[in-house]
Amino acid sequence: MTETTQRPGGTRSPGRPRSEKAEKAIIEATLDLLAEESGVAGVSIEAVAARAGAGKTTIYRRWSNKEALIVDALASVKAPLTRPAGESVREDLLAIARSMRSERHRQHAKCFWNVVGSAEKHPELYARYREHVIEPRREIMREVLRRGVERGEVRADLDLEVAIAMLTGSMSTKTPQDELPADYPDTVVEVLLRGIATDAG
Amino acid sequence: MTETTQRPGGTRSPGRPRSEKAEKAIIEATLDLLAEESGVAGVSIEAVAARAGAGKTTIYRRWSNKEALIVDALASVKAPLTRPAGESVREDLLAIARSMRSERHRQHAKCFWNVVGSAEKHPELYARYREHVIEPRREIMREVLRRGVERGEVRADLDLEVAIAMLTGSMSTKTPQDELPADYPDTVVEVLLRGIATDAG
Repeated sequence: MTETTQRPGGTRSPGRPRSEKAEKAIIEATLDLLAEESGVAGVSIEAVAARAGAGKTTIYRRWSNKEALIVDALASVKAPLTRPAGESVREDLLAIARSMRSERHRQHAKCFWNVVGSAEKHPELYARYREHVIEPRREIMREVLRRGVERGEVRADLDLEVAIAMLTGSMSTKTPQDELPADYPDTVVEVLLRGIATDAG
Repeated sequence: MTETTQRPGGTRSPGRPRSEKAEKAIIEATLDLLAEESGVAGVSIEAVAARAGAGKTTIYRRWSNKEALIVDALASVKAPLTRPAGESVREDLLAIARSMRSERHRQHAKCFWNVVGSAEKHPELYARYREHVIEPRREIMREVLRRGVERGEVRADLDLEVAIAMLTGSMSTKTPQDELPADYPDTVVEVLLRGIATDAG
């Protein structure tokens, strides 16, 4: 009855219910610590164990080090974007932008600023975060834009990375404490679409 | 011979050369500490004094508290954008985007991530940072866009804040360690302009 799942951090875990509860507490404790002022510096296996009420052995059984634990914790908040239905580039971009807006309300959204802020000090952690959390999201956006190009909705000479930066950047330009209006994703997508559409589109 | 200047943090200082040197060391020390892993938490008047080789009294003579010092230090890195020449909305946006790209190379660019990451814990610091550093920059972008609307270059119904978020967000979506291509500002402005231009523009 054990089910083995591949985690973003590259570790495997047997998914027994009892362990799942402990694991959830460990992930929550990691995010809590990460969201605090000291960010990555404030996270240690000892501190996570104490806050989660778990043994260090329990943590080390799953995660070989602090970095692996942090990457898994971040991945649990910033889940891969749902692959949009593919109706049209407009509908797909809207679905992505709306999902980004709702993510901002999550308790741990501010963790990400601390992780990016420590990218220079912890290049390996940041690289793993980018590989396991950021890149899968960007890949979904690339698929949407490539499909748009194939259908003649999006200009073929568009620099996809610039379009993605304009979408993700405009959705994260304010701190998580600042509220974005409900129709903000629509306005961003409207401007972006005009910017990237073919003349016929 | 004393010259009084108004600082972003709201303090006044007599600008004698000797004090200027000490002040520079204090600002540098603040930025160094702010750029470290612990961010705002790692900055204290004591730590700044020690690193700058200055007396605490010297610091308190200029800045009433840690927050005022941090805001001045940040303002010294992220200077107000140069007001563009006003030739055309394209030239003006390009000048702004290029200036943002070159700022990224500055040693202390990563400070900003730590300050935003601590916005919830230090709302007053963040509010002052926004008022004295961010808002004057945004106001310059608003002027450029408003002038574009007046000239018929930019759609009159454009949400200026969305356009600003797309510009600033796309210029800051990568960490300061990631290099942006030299023609990146051009590509961003090209897409943005198509997105915000009038049909005649």
